[in-house]
Amino acid sequence: MKEGAAPGFVLKDVPEPSFRDDEVLIRVHRAGVCGTDVHIYQWDAWAQGRVKPPIIVGHEFAGEVVRVGQLVTDVREGDRVTAEGHIVDGRCLLCRTGNSHVCPYTKIIGVDRDGCFAEYIAMPATNVWHLDDAVSFDIGGIHDPMGNAFHTVLTADIPGSTVLVTGCGPIGIFAVGICRAAGASRIIASDINDTRLALAARMGAHDVVHPDEAEAVVKERTGGLGVDVVLEMSGVASAIHQAFSLVRVGGRVQMLGIPAKPIEVDFSTEIIFKGLTVYGVVGRRMYDTWLSMTRFLRSGQFDPTPVITHRFPLDGFDDAMGVIKSGDAGKVIFEIA
Amino acid sequence: MKEGAAPGFVLKDVPEPSFRDDEVLIRVHRAGVCGTDVHIYQWDAWAQGRVKPPIIVGHEFAGEVVRVGQLVTDVREGDRVTAEGHIVDGRCLLCRTGNSHVCPYTKIIGVDRDGCFAEYIAMPATNVWHLDDAVSFDIGGIHDPMGNAFHTVLTADIPGSTVLVTGCGPIGIFAVGICRAAGASRIIASDINDTRLALAARMGAHDVVHPDEAEAVVKERTGGLGVDVVLEMSGVASAIHQAFSLVRVGGRVQMLGIPAKPIEVDFSTEIIFKGLTVYGVVGRRMYDTWLSMTRFLRSGQFDPTPVITHRFPLDGFDDAMGVIKSGDAGKVIFEIA
Amino acid sequence: MKEGAAPGFVLKDVPEPSFRDDEVLIRVHRAGVCGTDVHIYQWDAWAQGRVKPPIIVGHEFAGEVVRVGQLVTDVREGDRVTAEGHIVDGRCLLCRTGNSHVCPYTKIIGVDRDGCFAEYIAMPATNVWHLDDAVSFDIGGIHDPMGNAFHTVLTADIPGSTVLVTGCGPIGIFAVGICRAAGASRIIASDINDTRLALAARMGAHDVVHPDEAEAVVKERTGGLGVDVVLEMSGVASAIHQAFSLVRVGGRVQMLGIPAKPIEVDFSTEIIFKGLTVYGVVGRRMYDTWLSMTRFLRSGQFDPTPVITHRFPLDGFDDAMGVIKSGDAGKVIFEIA
Amino acid sequence: MKEGAAPGFVLKDVPEPSFRDDEVLIRVHRAGVCGTDVHIYQWDAWAQGRVKPPIIVGHEFAGEVVRVGQLVTDVREGDRVTAEGHIVDGRCLLCRTGNSHVCPYTKIIGVDRDGCFAEYIAMPATNVWHLDDAVSFDIGGIHDPMGNAFHTVLTADIPGSTVLVTGCGPIGIFAVGICRAAGASRIIASDINDTRLALAARMGAHDVVHPDEAEAVVKERTGGLGVDVVLEMSGVASAIHQAFSLVRVGGRVQMLGIPAKPIEVDFSTEIIFKGLTVYGVVGRRMYDTWLSMTRFLRSGQFDPTPVITHRFPLDGFDDAMGVIKSGDAGKVIFEIA
Repeated sequence: MKEGAAPGFVLKDVPEPSFRDDEVLIRVHRAGVCGTDVHIYQWDAWAQGRVKPPIIVGHEFAGEVVRVGQLVTDVREGDRVTAEGHIVDGRCLLCRTGNSHVCPYTKIIGVDRDGCFAEYIAMPATNVWHLDDAVSFDIGGIHDPMGNAFHTVLTADIPGSTVLVTGCGPIGIFAVGICRAAGASRIIASDINDTRLALAARMGAHDVVHPDEAEAVVKERTGGLGVDVVLEMSGVASAIHQAFSLVRVGGRVQMLGIPAKPIEVDFSTEIIFKGLTVYGVVGRRMYDTWLSMTRFLRSGQFDPTPVITHRFPLDGFDDAMGVIKSGDAGKVIFEIA
Repeated sequence: MKEGAAPGFVLKDVPEPSFRDDEVLIRVHRAGVCGTDVHIYQWDAWAQGRVKPPIIVGHEFAGEVVRVGQLVTDVREGDRVTAEGHIVDGRCLLCRTGNSHVCPYTKIIGVDRDGCFAEYIAMPATNVWHLDDAVSFDIGGIHDPMGNAFHTVLTADIPGSTVLVTGCGPIGIFAVGICRAAGASRIIASDINDTRLALAARMGAHDVVHPDEAEAVVKERTGGLGVDVVLEMSGVASAIHQAFSLVRVGGRVQMLGIPAKPIEVDFSTEIIFKGLTVYGVVGRRMYDTWLSMTRFLRSGQFDPTPVITHRFPLDGFDDAMGVIKSGDAGKVIFEIA
Repeated sequence: MKEGAAPGFVLKDVPEPSFRDDEVLIRVHRAGVCGTDVHIYQWDAWAQGRVKPPIIVGHEFAGEVVRVGQLVTDVREGDRVTAEGHIVDGRCLLCRTGNSHVCPYTKIIGVDRDGCFAEYIAMPATNVWHLDDAVSFDIGGIHDPMGNAFHTVLTADIPGSTVLVTGCGPIGIFAVGICRAAGASRIIASDINDTRLALAARMGAHDVVHPDEAEAVVKERTGGLGVDVVLEMSGVASAIHQAFSLVRVGGRVQMLGIPAKPIEVDFSTEIIFKGLTVYGVVGRRMYDTWLSMTRFLRSGQFDPTPVITHRFPLDGFDDAMGVIKSGDAGKVIFEIA
Repeated sequence: MKEGAAPGFVLKDVPEPSFRDDEVLIRVHRAGVCGTDVHIYQWDAWAQGRVKPPIIVGHEFAGEVVRVGQLVTDVREGDRVTAEGHIVDGRCLLCRTGNSHVCPYTKIIGVDRDGCFAEYIAMPATNVWHLDDAVSFDIGGIHDPMGNAFHTVLTADIPGSTVLVTGCGPIGIFAVGICRAAGASRIIASDINDTRLALAARMGAHDVVHPDEAEAVVKERTGGLGVDVVLEMSGVASAIHQAFSLVRVGGRVQMLGIPAKPIEVDFSTEIIFKGLTVYGVVGRRMYDTWLSMTRFLRSGQFDPTPVITHRFPLDGFDDAMGVIKSGDAGKVIFEIA
């Protein structure tokens, strides 16, 4: 947990969380580690502005329900579950019209309230998502970032499309596999890191390239036209310019990577004259994205197992942060129970 | 060709077709045989009302361009091509707004003007579609019915969906393979014919069933809810009722199979109270469908080769008609050059 | 209320309804009368199969909140409200993916549980919709059927479209006004009843016609092509055939009217060869339809006031049923408080 | 015409244009003046890089067909017409899949080949659009910029929406009127120029504001949420930032105004975390936009007449350029025949 306003985490004993009548208590088995957790660990400017210690960190997990509030009717003790970490108000106009993913009143576990790097977590029953029998706790524990990838991919028109994925962190690699499973005809994955490119290739990328090779390969594979869809998963300025440059006229750019600072864009030539559609990806659509994810996993058409490259016990948090910062990890998870 | 108003075809020498300045002359290498051709061969009521002999029959083909009209700029002698067999006016409101597939002024080759069961055919250059190097004349010769299947599948939302295909004639079997390549999570194919079901299984159906088993299997595979999408490829009344019955509430039914006569439907319970969307499939979208088809073929994600079960020389037309009528064929093609 | 399994209603004193912790108690000011209520009053075959007396009938209303359950946070005593009468489970896959309107576990007030032809009604807080200050209880009391009309209209592409409305009962007349407000370029309304056609004209229909005139007028107004969209609001077999006949190729038919029995349809010529999309309308989308409705009312771009033609006290229920059965009424409401 | 590589235009006698067999010769009656023409007149950096004098300028016009090429079948001498000024190749993948508006081989009249500030112009028959009897040459002469506005508006979901229009040049003012006709519930128009705001109000804006008032008015009219749709018609950096700021989460920004230089954007907060969709508008969709435009004009639901504020003979080109540069004009047209 983040005990105070300083770098680092501590592992300490805390009371079992209380839970409301419409919530459930979950024993955490696996928890995924996200770049957001690293920001909080490092206590950078964003973290200092958003997070109020003391707080238990972590927002990706799977586990077993151990207690249910008295108003809860459709979650039972013993259920194998994961959960949507964005706790929305459920009553605002966005929530009532199918746009909960951008609910202005969202509270995120591990950021705005206690999270899942712990033995137990309390969650509203409405946020719980049951795991299919075919889905392990390992995979259940990374539903949150996979969901980001599913949201990014499935809000574009993928069957038969040519796709460029810029940035092969875990979400980018998931996206490669989802594109392949969803019928993309050509997937070109770009990153500076060869370990990540190897994972992208394993997940089904037809071409893996360094950013300086991307233009030539895209041109060759698309007859000079550019790709139908770019999934921008890096947040890096040069990659964003490349996204606008290498997508075809009339194409679509899905933006998930978060740039750390403003970027100078020539809207005329990069977006308007090209007739592009640009879509900003926030979280996961509730719960369309979750249903699709379950379907892809249950059928076996998408298997994220190779993306999990490192496992640590909860007290290995310093090592976990280190391996992520090294850039050589795919997905890193905590084995808690 | 169909020489007169009576059952049967004849093979005879005819002059090489003339072609206009905006047309090209194509040497036919392969031609696919369609149920429509059987109707004309048998000279049934529909054929008698629509077709005016003498006429060369056949509308599915691939070949090599041997002559080009003087206004043609983007097709050259020697090009390997197939063609859209619906010749539209190109200037009506439907054509000008992206709906050429339902142009009211459509003329179909082999039905309204001379077709492709011949050594040469003249086609407007605008109808010509170039074959990718990776695509054989065999596969080129069946682009028309594959295009029907692509149109049927890709106008539904397939990635992650559960799909029931009712009717496993060649177009139904193509549709199974396209659904699989486009990311369907569960494909249930239904037919009365075990030969066809075996082909459907080979093209990727997760379950193949007889119609009387369909309900139980759909219920089991979808948790009792019904499938997201039904592709109705049979035109049989009982299959159409089953389509409406086994699609989930709020789902989608794509209708391609042509019923021979009116069917009694309870709109209240079969369509309205279920909140369904029903879509009538005509031809192929020009040329979105063709581009997708080329992408799926070029990438290798969809390979229709197993569907071609019989080959005949052009003078084997009686045998070709016979094998189709037997119901045991997949796709039947003529090898002409 | 419906006291027993026989025709007619009775007015009687009943205890104030109890309400759960997540429900509110509403004092009913206005209630709309629907054809469904007439079916229950007449105790026809449908009613006998669905409704279990004793039950308070009525599902369209507006009123004032007088008590709120202890778990309710966003509805307060004194709030002016109406409500969605479909009580859904909120947790099934349909509800969780934005399709609550087809939730298989729906309970309808006035049909499956006590309704609104009463001084008080208990409603789940999640079903409550606040009335804008600009919206009267009269208009609030008919949100349910207006919502059906909004759902029917706004799931088609209306701006600039030509529209045929077959059937000018209250929902059809609402639909005319909504089409006009949503930018339809030509609205042709068809009915056998001149009183209803006069209301349709008042709500903005460009042409009002008897069914036997519809074909000629549609042809003339659309250059022979047919209309882009048909809103089928009658449930009459001849009107449904006319819908398929008078919509243009590639057009859309929205079906809301409920046929009393099966209809023989030639799918080939009426739907498939025309490349139509047919959509079955159930209830109101939750709560996209409600938000749009509030927007249209608040802006004044749609004013349903002329459609309300008759008002009765609650004990005038026999007269209310009679005037609806006469066919000369627009919308009939009860003035309760 | 632009005679050489220097500022200004000249009026001179030139030979009647030749035309190909698939083209028609049109006697120009009215021609609209666009900001693009002012750039060419002033011979700024963009013009110097794109335009090759000598060339006849002008791309918006209406007139009467006086001669038709021998291959032309559906345009006749005497027809009252306007035309799409983007001459596309018609055969590339973009053109063949309904995206001619972004055809990479587009030639624009008045920029890449001779334009319409002349007595006669030659146009491909496929670019000709017939004027409805109800549409005057005045209105016909401004179909090109109105088409930009229709494209911008009708690719968003307008019925019932709240809309902010940033920039009330002629296209912005057209957009206001189209939004009103298409059922927007609240239209807020923003500009620095009161003359333009007065025109926006006359065309149906509910609120007209200066940019520094926009935030407060948007907040008030939308309950603090922001508008559903922003139409960015100015190309000004501060307006673009305001577009991203004042659109609601999950909303849509249509970008038509062309920024003169790159703009620094914080993608994280301005686009991604808001879950926005951004669409770059190029030209007019061929010919969906044109059909919608004709429908809106024919029905009278949209009347652009008030936007035409100034008329000049062809030799008044210096005055015409001056009045546009002054910023006080709506639409300026030449009366040629």
